[in-house]
Amino acid sequence: MNYKSLFFLLMTVLTGEICLAQSNQRMAEGDFKTTATTQQGKQYPQVNSDGRVRVSISAPNALKVQLDIGGKKYDLVKDDKGVWTGESAPQDEGFHYYQLNIDGASVPDPGSLYYYGASRWGSGIEIPAKDQDFYALKSVPHGELRENYYFSKTSNSVRHAYIYTPPGYDKNNAQRYPVLYLQHGMGENETGWGNQGYTARIMDNLIADGKAVPFIIVMENSSVNFGGGPRSPRPDAAPGQAVPPAANANAPRGPMGGMNITGQFERILLDDLIPFVESNYRVIPDQAHRAMAGLSMGGMQTRAIVIANPDKFSYVGMFSSGTFTPSEIKDIDAFKKNVKVVFMSFGGREGGSARIGAAAEEWNKVGIKGISYVSPETAHEWQSWRRSLHEFAPLIFKN
Amino acid sequence: MNYKSLFFLLMTVLTGEICLAQSNQRMAEGDFKTTATTQQGKQYPQVNSDGRVRVSISAPNALKVQLDIGGKKYDLVKDDKGVWTGESAPQDEGFHYYQLNIDGASVPDPGSLYYYGASRWGSGIEIPAKDQDFYALKSVPHGELRENYYFSKTSNSVRHAYIYTPPGYDKNNAQRYPVLYLQHGMGENETGWGNQGYTARIMDNLIADGKAVPFIIVMENSSVNFGGGPRSPRPDAAPGQAVPPAANANAPRGPMGGMNITGQFERILLDDLIPFVESNYRVIPDQAHRAMAGLSMGGMQTRAIVIANPDKFSYVGMFSSGTFTPSEIKDIDAFKKNVKVVFMSFGGREGGSARIGAAAEEWNKVGIKGISYVSPETAHEWQSWRRSLHEFAPLIFKN
Repeated sequence: MNYKSLFFLLMTVLTGEICLAQSNQRMAEGDFKTTATTQQGKQYPQVNSDGRVRVSISAPNALKVQLDIGGKKYDLVKDDKGVWTGESAPQDEGFHYYQLNIDGASVPDPGSLYYYGASRWGSGIEIPAKDQDFYALKSVPHGELRENYYFSKTSNSVRHAYIYTPPGYDKNNAQRYPVLYLQHGMGENETGWGNQGYTARIMDNLIADGKAVPFIIVMENSSVNFGGGPRSPRPDAAPGQAVPPAANANAPRGPMGGMNITGQFERILLDDLIPFVESNYRVIPDQAHRAMAGLSMGGMQTRAIVIANPDKFSYVGMFSSGTFTPSEIKDIDAFKKNVKVVFMSFGGREGGSARIGAAAEEWNKVGIKGISYVSPETAHEWQSWRRSLHEFAPLIFKN
Repeated sequence: MNYKSLFFLLMTVLTGEICLAQSNQRMAEGDFKTTATTQQGKQYPQVNSDGRVRVSISAPNALKVQLDIGGKKYDLVKDDKGVWTGESAPQDEGFHYYQLNIDGASVPDPGSLYYYGASRWGSGIEIPAKDQDFYALKSVPHGELRENYYFSKTSNSVRHAYIYTPPGYDKNNAQRYPVLYLQHGMGENETGWGNQGYTARIMDNLIADGKAVPFIIVMENSSVNFGGGPRSPRPDAAPGQAVPPAANANAPRGPMGGMNITGQFERILLDDLIPFVESNYRVIPDQAHRAMAGLSMGGMQTRAIVIANPDKFSYVGMFSSGTFTPSEIKDIDAFKKNVKVVFMSFGGREGGSARIGAAAEEWNKVGIKGISYVSPETAHEWQSWRRSLHEFAPLIFKN
């Protein structure tokens, strides 16, 4: 091959690649479509294969309209009919909260579905992920997501919980099931795991594939009466009775400053919620068949509650919640008789992801299965937590 | 008593009444507070004892902000911090959809909870009603609202239904229950009765008071594939197979012009949903223990389905859905062997309310219990339908 031929070959390849790149870009620009979080019948919001979010809203008299997502505001452009349209930069795969800003007013996008997070009901957007199949709605046997009201003596009020029962729960009247208590993060509530977390779909699909044993999942609101008081009142304290701080002086405090990480939730969980579940559902009411996990604040609460109550849960999951090591357990010999798995995860874009591998090793060294998992290319967001549940669920209740 | 004394007495009474009226008005102006549909932690929207709705939103650069409720737009007023605030005229007791308008953009109020109706997820506001106790959340035994996915052969897709099970359903394994199929209105979906309809609370309270027998309620989306085609394809038609109009030429058509009032829903209900419920819940699977009711379009669908399938349901409820008379039934002697109650209701502000009393009488004359109910001072809205369910539920499954 002479230089001239080589030159032409090189040019052909380069031109081809440039054309291909241009074509990919054109395709990405052109392939915007509605997504799982777009209201049925609405044309926007849309997402393209780059992960860009496109919104559009009629606001004929507005001076400025912006899309506010991922901590950045993107200016929309007005057409001659008064409709404003525009796109964000590419977003990570998975689920993100967002809002619109119209002349300084932050409002939900009228085209999106609404989710609770960031301490408000508001817009959410789903960027289709390469691994979305694990939470796709399939024609497999389906469990149920059940809305429950129950009376809590601790809070002296009727409280609200969602309970996932696995496929066949109502037909297998002789079978009793293990239970996972699964907590949301700060600024979220008991609806998060069932809505944007896709808990039921993840479990239905894992069970259909034979990858997880059927178990019940209980989702309650753990943002209850935080404060600087004692970590948990004595179980024998009457409602409203003051409890001296000394009562739980040796209980660990969470990593959130001086804040009481579990608030009133520890007592609600142990004294009201677990008894409610165990007397109203066909569960196996012992430590070996009880797990607790949570994301972010919910994982910190999980750790604090497990440390303070080492005889309650056998499986521990912390999703984007820091690390947990055997050194935090007083009586490790007693602990390892009953606790089978400590699972820690982070999104790959989170700082904590570097530390959980070593922490998991520490658990393995003392004879408790330690597992770490890093969700590729996700941050402190729901795609990390969906994947964490998908990794955690197959590990539990198999002994 | 002389004239002078009488004059003074009269003046005192009149002045007192004027003062009282002024005081009431001042109190109403001053007693705005958040309501059941305000997001937890948000200060607005608020409602006062006159039923006025007050909204408030920060929109420092907006030129005009309005509250859009009950078919009217109310201008808000901007303060020196850029916060816009204003009130509506008094609204009827109960639940209303609404939105904000910011420089021409119609958006949900970021302070409200969101409901599906008027063909969109958006803001709703609850005006506390004098009779709100019947749907209050109380410390009584609670049923469950269960989210179900099931496969429909008719639509060849996985479909979504909410199913209310009464208190004790899971504990009374030997008991089987009757079932009410309960439909939403046009522009609404399967979430309406469970959310703004307060179905679970209404039933929990009625059952706790011994006023209704425990039964299951199934809520599915009946807005399926409307069109001008035959009212219902033959049950033996393969999916996608064309069905000649003659197949159901004698089937009645709904009152909505040439529109196919039941769409694909009749076949989904009869061929997929009822079989799913009867094989997955402990129900009594016969006509005597099956009821159907609906609001607005859902009541029209109920009538059309009952007329076309007189052997399926024993109790019929039409809430704000027109009238139903024995003349619409081909074989009234066969019909009255199996159908026990025909219930028709309207809001008092709706035109139809004048006609249902006579229609109910016609049913009584042929030997079927006809009941009419008019909801005081409500229109074509959810307070009429909550009250209708509350009236209808005690009448059914008691034979």
